[in-house]
Amino acid sequence: MGRARQGNNTDQAGIQKKSDEKYMRQALRQAKKAYDLEETPIGCVIVHEGKVIGRGYNRRNTDKNPLAHAELTAIRRASRKIGDWRLEECTLYVTLEPCQMCAGAIVQSRVERVVVGCMNPKAGCAGSILNLLDMREFNHQVRLETGVLEEECSMLMKTFFKELRTKQKMRKKSLAE
Amino acid sequence: MGRARQGNNTDQAGIQKKSDEKYMRQALRQAKKAYDLEETPIGCVIVHEGKVIGRGYNRRNTDKNPLAHAELTAIRRASRKIGDWRLEECTLYVTLEPCQMCAGAIVQSRVERVVVGCMNPKAGCAGSILNLLDMREFNHQVRLETGVLEEECSMLMKTFFKELRTKQKMRKKSLAE
Repeated sequence: MGRARQGNNTDQAGIQKKSDEKYMRQALRQAKKAYDLEETPIGCVIVHEGKVIGRGYNRRNTDKNPLAHAELTAIRRASRKIGDWRLEECTLYVTLEPCQMCAGAIVQSRVERVVVGCMNPKAGCAGSILNLLDMREFNHQVRLETGVLEEECSMLMKTFFKELRTKQKMRKKSLAE
Repeated sequence: MGRARQGNNTDQAGIQKKSDEKYMRQALRQAKKAYDLEETPIGCVIVHEGKVIGRGYNRRNTDKNPLAHAELTAIRRASRKIGDWRLEECTLYVTLEPCQMCAGAIVQSRVERVVVGCMNPKAGCAGSILNLLDMREFNHQVRLETGVLEEECSMLMKTFFKELRTKQKMRKKSLAE
């Protein structure tokens, strides 16, 4: 009996892991759209009852809008889709740990669960600088899973910043000549 | 000389106070628009070089959008107006202490100064629960002034919630009959 239950739990965990990776791959696809615009490559999808109801990617420079982060765009679209400001039974997948604004928006919109690709030690607010998703002082707490497709998410960021530095060097060199 | 300087400082403080109250009155006008929609009455204006470049009021229920807070609307409009995601030389006036999402957005958009009407002890993130506007871990800190037209701002909230409770009681009563 004990062994059977353990087996079921392992199956459940395996199914959850596969499902999380599937949606994180979709968030990565969104991040690549940001990459193509030379924006920091961050992508997000929101899932409700097995369906993606909101997508977003970082367009801060392109749109000249400080609110054009991946998560905020996905939250706005998901709310429009379900016709409610409360995203209570939703899971939000994001390739990079959310900033203070996006973590705040996640709590405000009552997202149930957040799945993060890689962490952002310098600015992240889902555990790095502080964890806004799980503060007992607020009227909502969010379940959190980190490190899903961590390497792919992290590699995309690293490649982006490496390329950016190369471009900046080239630009400086051509200006000096 | 010392007295002259002190006099100048007092004059400066007086001018600043008058100017802050003038813009807070405009934020209160925005808050009243929310009130008329039966939304929690919160209003915001953003000022750059003596001009209001963004206005907003709470429309969360009306728009069914968790992002439709007064501050986020004002920030989006101000950014569009000046064509930059950075609101670096701007002052944001808001009738109620910002929540975690809005305080985060203020830091993300690099607003220089925030002026608050009344505090929100249960959920505010500019000093009540925590102060996201002034954390050395982030790459930007915001100057903060509180208590400007505090009584008017606070009274508007109190009247709103009192009316709401009366309406709810009436509704319950009419359902019971």
